Formats: sequence, C-alpha cells, structure tokens
Amino acid sequence: MLDGAEGPRARYRRQVLAEVRERAWQQVELAGASALSLKAIATDMGMTAPALYRYVAGRDELLTDLVLEAYGDLAETVEAAAGGSTGADASASGRGRGGGDGPDAAGVLRRAATALRDWAVRHPQRYLLLYGTPVPGYRAPAEATEFARRIFAPVLAAYGSSADPAGPADAGPALDRAVTFWTRLHGVLSLEVAGQFTGMAVDPAARYAAELDSVLPAD
Amino acid sequence: MLDGAEGPRARYRRQVLAEVRERAWQQVELAGASALSLKAIATDMGMTAPALYRYVAGRDELLTDLVLEAYGDLAETVEAAAGGSTGADASASGRGRGGGDGPDAAGVLRRAATALRDWAVRHPQRYLLLYGTPVPGYRAPAEATEFARRIFAPVLAAYGSSADPAGPADAGPALDRAVTFWTRLHGVLSLEVAGQFTGMAVDPAARYAAELDSVLPAD
Repeated sequence: MLDGAEGPRARYRRQVLAEVRERAWQQVELAGASALSLKAIATDMGMTAPALYRYVAGRDELLTDLVLEAYGDLAETVEAAAGGSTGADASASGRGRGGGDGPDAAGVLRRAATALRDWAVRHPQRYLLLYGTPVPGYRAPAEATEFARRIFAPVLAAYGSSADPAGPADAGPALDRAVTFWTRLHGVLSLEVAGQFTGMAVDPAARYAAELDSVLPAD
Repeated sequence: MLDGAEGPRARYRRQVLAEVRERAWQQVELAGASALSLKAIATDMGMTAPALYRYVAGRDELLTDLVLEAYGDLAETVEAAAGGSTGADASASGRGRGGGDGPDAAGVLRRAATALRDWAVRHPQRYLLLYGTPVPGYRAPAEATEFARRIFAPVLAAYGSSADPAGPADAGPALDRAVTFWTRLHGVLSLEVAGQFTGMAVDPAARYAAELDSVLPAD
C-alpha cells in the first residue's frame, strides 16, 4: 500500500468506528452512559453483536473512546481560551494586563471559565460524562488523567503565578485556590446542566459569573 | 379484617415491594440508575417479568419510589439537623446564639451543611440520584419538588432572616445567598462523592468546611 493511502478495508473499519461512536453518543443522551449497550448499537446498525465485537472490544473500551473524545475536546477548548498558557507560556504570551501578580492571571481564568461553561451548555452529556455521576464498574484509563491535568494546568498556573506575594508560589494555597475555582464553577454548572434550577427564580449565567468573580485574584 | 391487622396477601405484597426496592438500590449502585431494569430484578427474584409488573407498574414508577425515598430521607435529615426550623419555628426554638441577625442563622446553616455532607458521603448513590446526572427520559413527580423545597426551606429562612439590615428581607438577595450556599457545597460534595479528587492533594472535608465558612452570614 502506498504511503498515506488507505485500503478499502481500513476505510470501512474507520467508517464503522465513526458510526459506532456517533450511535454511542446518541445512546448516552437517550438512555444514559450506564445503559450503554453494544448489543443495542449492533442492532441499530443492522449487525450481529459478534460482528460488532470485531471492531470494539467491549462496553468499557467504547466508554473510554467517548470519555477521551470529550476530554480531548474540552482540553483543547480550555487551552485555546486560556491562550495555551501553562506557566512559562503564560509569561511569554504577552497578553498581560500588567496586574501586580502574574501576567493576566484573571484574564486567563475568566477566559477558561467562559469556555468551560459554553462547552458544557453546548454538550451537557459530555460534561456530565466527565464530571457527573460515575458509571458503576467503569474506570477511566490513565490517558483521562492526563487530559484532566491539561484542563486544570492553566488554572493552577494562574493561581501559582498570582499566589501570596509573601514569597515564591506555595503549592498548597495555590492548589486550594485552583480547586475552589473548580468547585465553585462546577457547583453552578453541574446543577444548571442537570436542570436543577428549573422552576426557580435563578439565573444560572449570573450565578456562574458571580462565582467566577468570587475566585478571581485581586488586581 | 380487624382494624390495623394485615391479611397475608397484603403482607406478601409489602414484602415483595420491599425486596424490589432493595434490589433496585443494589442495581443503581452496581449498574447505575439509567440501567435500572425490572426484567433483571424479576430474574434475581426468581419471578417472571409479567409477575413483577403486578407489583410495580414500570421502571419510572420504581425510579420514583427510589427518588422519593432518598428525598424523604434527606429532607428529614436536614430538617432535624436544622432544628426543624423554617422561619417562625427558628425563632421559637430558642437555640439562638443571639447574633445580630436572625436567631442562630449561622448555626442552622452549619448544622444543615454538616448533615448534608454526612448523608451524601454515607449514601453517595442516593445523593447522585437526586443531584447528579439526570436519568434520560425520566421526570421526577411533583412530590419530589415538594421534598426539594423542604430541604431548601431552612437555608432560605436562615438567609431571609439574616438579610441586609437595610430593611425587610428582600427575596432576591436572600435567594441568591441561599443558592450560593447550595452551589458551593454541592460543588465540593458532588466532585468528592464522584471520586474526582482521587490522586489529588485535596482534603474534601477541609474544602467543604472552607466553602461553608465562605457563605455563613457574618455575626
């Protein structure tokens, strides 16, 4: 086979996998991640279950595929919004507002938070697959941890570089502040995408903005 | 039948329903709420599915049973911790620390928050069934809203009676503060019970306590 070319067999395999993934996302939306069923996907695709198992090893492998797709998408989204900044990069990016602390730490956090909410509201199933109720019996692979780290890195860097002026960044307080950024935003966002504010006189966007303000480093 | 007595038929029905409910909770834990299957419960119990349907109308009715059991349990827990207080009751309970604002508003909030976390850590599946990823296609009944209101009432009352001293309680700010109490605690708690802090140098209990402190009314 010529370099870069794709045989019909490989192309067919790729098409099947793309369709499996699409139908799996539909199942997550319609029935929930813990009800994901390869048998149902096979039936939908007019295949037998054993035939489908030639393409996907099992439910857990398929779930991992979805989890990594969602994590990868969110990581790219947050990194792009934050300016691809993780510490050193942030200093080099030259986007700073010239605040007293790190280079534009508040701007990085604001952009990351906005990107996170936009993404979650657009893809509630994906957000909840990553941060909602865990699927019993399923354990995400090590790669998922790496994505989670990438998503958190710009936030941690922003607090690390804007830590107490008393001395060089102390991981403890910076981590606490970064975790608070995460838990406060997740608190509003997860209840919003789960529909918990329905029927209440609550504006989730305003609550989210207020919580973001509450965790931004002072200028 | 004598008053208060129970015929063998009614007793059997009650036993079957209790066993169905217990097995349903096991399924939620082992497979997830969205994978709840009456057929699987029937098989476990050595019954045919049609036989089980004589006791439970369907998956949604069974889910409602679990949701209302969890809500009822949490509502009683929070109300007991808060001192059964909702506004007028709080004044009458005589537990006040005599702070400048409402009668022991901070104490009510502290006790409610502690009871909430203890309950959620003891029953993560129940907490996540109420506040985690919604089960697609399932809509909780109106009674669930009433329980949610009961759980929130002491919190709202605590903020209502400790609102800005400028004037009579304004529902807007009091509601905002009560919602912030909820979202900040839920942010930590939901990530904790979902296992999201695993492998991180984060102490969920300390984070929860810090978030609680951040929303208590000033003395």
